Amino acid sequence: MFKLNQNYLKLPGSYLFSTVGRKQREYEAAHPDKKVIRLSIGDVTQPLAPAILEAMHKAVDEMGHAETFRGYAPDLGYEFLRNAIAKSDYQDRGADISPDEIFVSDGAKCDSGNIQEIFSLDVKIAVCDPVYPVYVDSNVMAGRTGVYDTKTETWSNVIYMPCTAENGFAPEIPRETPDVIYLCFPNNPTGSAITKDRLQEWVDYAGKVGALIIYDAAYEAYISQEDVPHTIYECPGARECAIELKSFSKNAGFTGVRLGYTVVPKDLKCQGTPLHSLWARRHGTKYNGAPYIVQRAGEAVYSQEGKEQLRAQVAYYMKNARVILESLKGAGYTVSGGVNAPYIWLKTPDKMTSWEFFDCLLEKANVVGTPGSGFGPSGEGYFRLTAFGSYENTVEALERIKNM
Amino acid sequence: MFKLNQNYLKLPGSYLFSTVGRKQREYEAAHPDKKVIRLSIGDVTQPLAPAILEAMHKAVDEMGHAETFRGYAPDLGYEFLRNAIAKSDYQDRGADISPDEIFVSDGAKCDSGNIQEIFSLDVKIAVCDPVYPVYVDSNVMAGRTGVYDTKTETWSNVIYMPCTAENGFAPEIPRETPDVIYLCFPNNPTGSAITKDRLQEWVDYAGKVGALIIYDAAYEAYISQEDVPHTIYECPGARECAIELKSFSKNAGFTGVRLGYTVVPKDLKCQGTPLHSLWARRHGTKYNGAPYIVQRAGEAVYSQEGKEQLRAQVAYYMKNARVILESLKGAGYTVSGGVNAPYIWLKTPDKMTSWEFFDCLLEKANVVGTPGSGFGPSGEGYFRLTAFGSYENTVEALERIKNM
Repeated sequence: MFKLNQNYLKLPGSYLFSTVGRKQREYEAAHPDKKVIRLSIGDVTQPLAPAILEAMHKAVDEMGHAETFRGYAPDLGYEFLRNAIAKSDYQDRGADISPDEIFVSDGAKCDSGNIQEIFSLDVKIAVCDPVYPVYVDSNVMAGRTGVYDTKTETWSNVIYMPCTAENGFAPEIPRETPDVIYLCFPNNPTGSAITKDRLQEWVDYAGKVGALIIYDAAYEAYISQEDVPHTIYECPGARECAIELKSFSKNAGFTGVRLGYTVVPKDLKCQGTPLHSLWARRHGTKYNGAPYIVQRAGEAVYSQEGKEQLRAQVAYYMKNARVILESLKGAGYTVSGGVNAPYIWLKTPDKMTSWEFFDCLLEKANVVGTPGSGFGPSGEGYFRLTAFGSYENTVEALERIKNM
Repeated sequence: MFKLNQNYLKLPGSYLFSTVGRKQREYEAAHPDKKVIRLSIGDVTQPLAPAILEAMHKAVDEMGHAETFRGYAPDLGYEFLRNAIAKSDYQDRGADISPDEIFVSDGAKCDSGNIQEIFSLDVKIAVCDPVYPVYVDSNVMAGRTGVYDTKTETWSNVIYMPCTAENGFAPEIPRETPDVIYLCFPNNPTGSAITKDRLQEWVDYAGKVGALIIYDAAYEAYISQEDVPHTIYECPGARECAIELKSFSKNAGFTGVRLGYTVVPKDLKCQGTPLHSLWARRHGTKYNGAPYIVQRAGEAVYSQEGKEQLRAQVAYYMKNARVILESLKGAGYTVSGGVNAPYIWLKTPDKMTSWEFFDCLLEKANVVGTPGSGFGPSGEGYFRLTAFGSYENTVEALERIKNM
């Protein structure tokens, strides 16, 4: 008689964004006359940049001729893409990462969910609180997280690092020593960033205690301040203690195109075993490469035209971020984020819970945001809005919120 | 101190196709004057069909306008694709599968590697021998397979079902009762098929002993004989005991496009828990959908033009299969497969091992095939050739083999 993975049954409720989506659909079904504006999930709305479209059309044409047709991609991804990534995202910034340390994938969500597989089932993870749900949920599914306490909404075997107004939404080195530390900067959901000096402290700490850092840099393109690092490999020592995850979703509008990559430096070892070979084995066994057309689209992100067009796209969204930040401040809300990230994190008014504010916003302003509590217990009483809407919708949504 | 998943370190050698590829590259580097023909990996070579190219160009254009731009796809896949799959692949064949039982993915390799995650770590798996390596390797990584015996090249906790000339390359019901049974028909690597009556015996057996069947139907489009089922759901009872995996790689030439799907019927339960909800949770947590452009390409596979063009493409490859079959028979080889599958399975001559024949074929005929032993111990002494080359290359390769 076959049996199921009981860890799946421990997961409370359903995935945050599914619940948000369901609530929105239910409201729309009940109120077909209302125009609901979505400032919730981090889904982009601007069309793909012309350089990317051109690259994709060209690649589609190539797939139509036997001479230029491409079947299975190389395990790690096409060299043309890995070379472009290594140069623009690392070497040009003085970070020593080579193309064969880059694993191209279909997105950072998959990578951040799958990366835990290469670790022992008894490693103890530390996460920021609030946090992108995938880090914890994928470890729950693997059976690493212990028992769930419905009162505190925490797992007994996870180290939570609270990020609240009190510490400026920056995690502190935990008292208990973790084995694997998930860090995401610029942060989802709080929109906070980390300075290079502060990140160096984490790298030094990990090196000292033998911990591994999984550094999620999905929002790197939104960094506007000088002292904020674009990659963890700007910090000496990171090659020996850190894996970095990157996404094309937010810097290039690829949420529906699907492309990302993971960096596993060859210096990163555990008792002599390089993690690179484990991740390569996973890639080779359970994955079959991102589509050729999509990898060509990724290459175009690094072309001169692509870079210029995407700078303008990021600027468009960051203009939205400023509208949200300033409007909310003007309306008396306590807000943070939105400077190095497309996320604005606000304190719910009148001591409302996060979900109470979600319902209130949906009903009174027909605006969908994301409840902070969905990202972890320290997110309770907070709420996330994203800058990924159209400018017109963002302005209208904020008008409605101000008049609530 | 973080620790690694020690199960990864138990995996012997590297992934079969990586080794084959490396040997080919090394030979080519040493003999730049030789034209090597690849009849090894199941990678297609014919260009994408016009209906698919047209759908992709159109979808790329849509991504270039804000009004038609698409971000994150729905968790299970777009309805337009799931509806087309449910109708053409199931309902038109009298198999009762609804669109919301279909999970669109980026390919059957990922799905066949990931599906084991929803089962308990102590389920015992049964596999055909020889077999597509991903089934066993993904269970090794999870820690289910026990100890590897380097002499017999088997795992202590896996039930092997030999498929050899003696039983017509059809597995027999194993003496020990398994929990999860992997079946692949038409079979990779042997190219053998199963009749509906024989498959019904497996469904009845699984129902009786409470086992689950993972049915890999990746090569379904190559079926030419009437009594061979196109889906396991043609068999009564399969909705209660079987998950089916499907790929677009071989029926539509999508190896570099990446699209597949998994069917989890809602009647499939384990002690009352529907497996559908577990797989949905995995999909929602660790996956983010196939690209919109690729899902539109998938939809075109089911259009009238798409179906006609792809029938011609499959016929093209099956003409190659006949060339291989007949040439090898003419040259005195013992061969099977190639009638309902694009794979030809041959007995190595002169008692050569599979890898000896690989080296011999590469050196003497400059043809790359796949050693049968790479698929499992009962594959030793066999060799796989695939029909996915161009017609010209296939004819030339077989001429060279005949003259060896």
